[in-house]
Amino acid sequence: MSEFTAYSIIAAKKNKKELSYKEIKWFVDSAVSGKVHKYQLSALLMAIYLNGMSTEETAHLTRVMLDSGEKLKFRGHHYVDKHSTGGIGDKASFILGPIAAACGVKVPMIAGRGLGHTGGTIDKIESVKGFKTGIDSKKFKELLKKNDFVLSAQTKKITPADGLIYSIRDVTATIESIPLITASIMSKKLAEGANGIVMDIKTGSGSFMKTSKRATELAKSILGTAKQFNKGATALLTDMSQPLGNKVGNSLEIIESLDTLKGNGPEDLTKLSVELAAHMVLLAKKAKNIKEARTKCIEVIENQKAYDLFRKVVASQGGKLSSLDNLEVAKTKTCVLARTSGYIKSFKNDVIGLKLVDLGGGRKVAGEKIDHAVGFDFHKKIGDQVKKGEKILTIFHHKKQNTLARKIKKEFQDDIILISKTKTNKPKLIQKVMSL
Amino acid sequence: MSEFTAYSIIAAKKNKKELSYKEIKWFVDSAVSGKVHKYQLSALLMAIYLNGMSTEETAHLTRVMLDSGEKLKFRGHHYVDKHSTGGIGDKASFILGPIAAACGVKVPMIAGRGLGHTGGTIDKIESVKGFKTGIDSKKFKELLKKNDFVLSAQTKKITPADGLIYSIRDVTATIESIPLITASIMSKKLAEGANGIVMDIKTGSGSFMKTSKRATELAKSILGTAKQFNKGATALLTDMSQPLGNKVGNSLEIIESLDTLKGNGPEDLTKLSVELAAHMVLLAKKAKNIKEARTKCIEVIENQKAYDLFRKVVASQGGKLSSLDNLEVAKTKTCVLARTSGYIKSFKNDVIGLKLVDLGGGRKVAGEKIDHAVGFDFHKKIGDQVKKGEKILTIFHHKKQNTLARKIKKEFQDDIILISKTKTNKPKLIQKVMSL
Repeated sequence: MSEFTAYSIIAAKKNKKELSYKEIKWFVDSAVSGKVHKYQLSALLMAIYLNGMSTEETAHLTRVMLDSGEKLKFRGHHYVDKHSTGGIGDKASFILGPIAAACGVKVPMIAGRGLGHTGGTIDKIESVKGFKTGIDSKKFKELLKKNDFVLSAQTKKITPADGLIYSIRDVTATIESIPLITASIMSKKLAEGANGIVMDIKTGSGSFMKTSKRATELAKSILGTAKQFNKGATALLTDMSQPLGNKVGNSLEIIESLDTLKGNGPEDLTKLSVELAAHMVLLAKKAKNIKEARTKCIEVIENQKAYDLFRKVVASQGGKLSSLDNLEVAKTKTCVLARTSGYIKSFKNDVIGLKLVDLGGGRKVAGEKIDHAVGFDFHKKIGDQVKKGEKILTIFHHKKQNTLARKIKKEFQDDIILISKTKTNKPKLIQKVMSL
Repeated sequence: MSEFTAYSIIAAKKNKKELSYKEIKWFVDSAVSGKVHKYQLSALLMAIYLNGMSTEETAHLTRVMLDSGEKLKFRGHHYVDKHSTGGIGDKASFILGPIAAACGVKVPMIAGRGLGHTGGTIDKIESVKGFKTGIDSKKFKELLKKNDFVLSAQTKKITPADGLIYSIRDVTATIESIPLITASIMSKKLAEGANGIVMDIKTGSGSFMKTSKRATELAKSILGTAKQFNKGATALLTDMSQPLGNKVGNSLEIIESLDTLKGNGPEDLTKLSVELAAHMVLLAKKAKNIKEARTKCIEVIENQKAYDLFRKVVASQGGKLSSLDNLEVAKTKTCVLARTSGYIKSFKNDVIGLKLVDLGGGRKVAGEKIDHAVGFDFHKKIGDQVKKGEKILTIFHHKKQNTLARKIKKEFQDDIILISKTKTNKPKLIQKVMSL
């Protein structure tokens, strides 16, 4: 007989008691094996949501989730990955990965697919024909050794406990819990073998953590957990009140990533990618300070080493370079024009993600196929002046979607993008840098 | 498509929003039909546990649970029942039911079985051979018309939503939630057709609501819900820091009930039964004030009308009067003696319930058979003086349980009953009376 029961552990958390490592381990392992019922798991998750978890408890949960599956282990500071809480037009992984790798960092990146208003790194890279994202751990190690950067989808063998817990959180309104988010992110990053992690925590209308306060809490929780595991970590709080870069949509985002790797990217995307990569370089001890790290990152863009490395990764993982150079973009364009003169005031960023879903570029439910060719190209950003009749963005869609595109155009004009008469400040891209 | 989703309703309660009747109805009905998953129900229950429910929400939940099953309806104030939150040696139903009925009240009593440290009214009455507790609604009405008091077990047709919700609460540590307890009790009492309800809310070591504050909260919640349904209600907060009466165990409790109906019962049990019955008589408008109601109740004990009515009920429901007059009690006795002289200070009342379970007189899990013959007879109560070597209680058990009885005897002496050198006050039996 075990010393624990599901009841006593739920009751303890419900009564705001701190759970021990053994209690969390017993509960999660029993939930995975089916001994603890899903309805007991969901009760515990709601109690955690409402009563919280200490840094120690969060680390225990992370450890238990990590230990539930396959783990990669690498030796050395130079195995560093980035994780983003996700946002509209966030294609920084494709840029910072090659930059950091070209600076001597090993980047073992395991990423996810999109759902709802957020796109997924794996969906975007699959715009390139032939690119394989289902990579087993043996091949993963080989590719990392050869290319310094590997980009793989999460398999069921990695943190299966997270898979179960996430599936329950998703339907019981317990997603936005800082300890649960922390354990979910950190268990996956630790399972892929990263010894350092740079967190890009988005704030604003298109993000998970809508307020700066919540984003700061999440950053502290992630850093605290990294410390418990003796891993290096840095967290950046960055703006997500408008799309990152100009392009939104799968193929379009890969095209913009290539432009950025060649030094021709939009200012915000370039700046953020360099900054995140620089912090990875610093954690990997490949530079003495952040300034030197930044200089190195800019250098590998200028000398095209990062661009070349990305092409090598694509080819190594089965992607056709001919497809990469000729990514399919939907042919029909519908332009959204400013109805009045003024300054761009705000974007309803999460709604933009949903409009991409309407066009087929994202999914409503897990497992749905997506259309890589559709998307948006934004010509104006917050603070930019616009004249009445001037193009704000272009919608790329298929001819048969003409009616839908006109509807979306109207929604952009009515509601999604607001224009004000008075001048608006541009949002600060990098709001805060926090480290251990 | 419904306008509701399980997710949005869970999220609302999680965010401390008040749920509407329609939301609660949709959620509970969908849970009963299986459209909403048990793990979503348990998440909502935990959110209700931690964030509470308003009086209106509690009434909505009561209504929805009531409407989920079969309902009896009777016209008139004089249909009144009692409900107790349960305690050790609580056999008041067998006494107050006949008393109230003999005073002109119609008592449609639906009761439950025991689990864990609390015994069940239905288990106790089944000590009488032949007594039928599974009564359908047609027969229930007939018996009530004929006998004025009917005692039946809850069927699956009554408040099936409560059955489902209770089964989930039981394994997710969400039992002790005042709105959930209220809805569970009130939906059942309303389903049996009672137009007035007297609540006996126990406080102290053997009770559900350990503190007077919690007991008062529950009383207020019950009264508030009764008001929403235009039902009469009175709540009594009564002591459960020691067994009620002297006898604990199924047959033993029926024997003590008969003694009490004949006017020879222990003081506390007699007083409480008369007081609860008097409040039923008052709610039924069969007396002008509580004093007159009390006088009437005492009268029907003295003239044996209540005793005769009980025997009639037993016979009408199939119980053999020969069995009632010769209830089986285990033959072997083990006496628990005082180790020191002094005054009885306290009882660990809930542990007494568990010791009865150890002897087989209660059940660990639902559905287990129980032994009606075993039990305890307490000779001393809190505040009583005892001399070293004097009998405090007698354990009634079977011969093969000698070793177990010795172990239980030692536990009583070590831990369950404390004796102090200094005089202790007797606890106040009826602590508070609250009405609408």
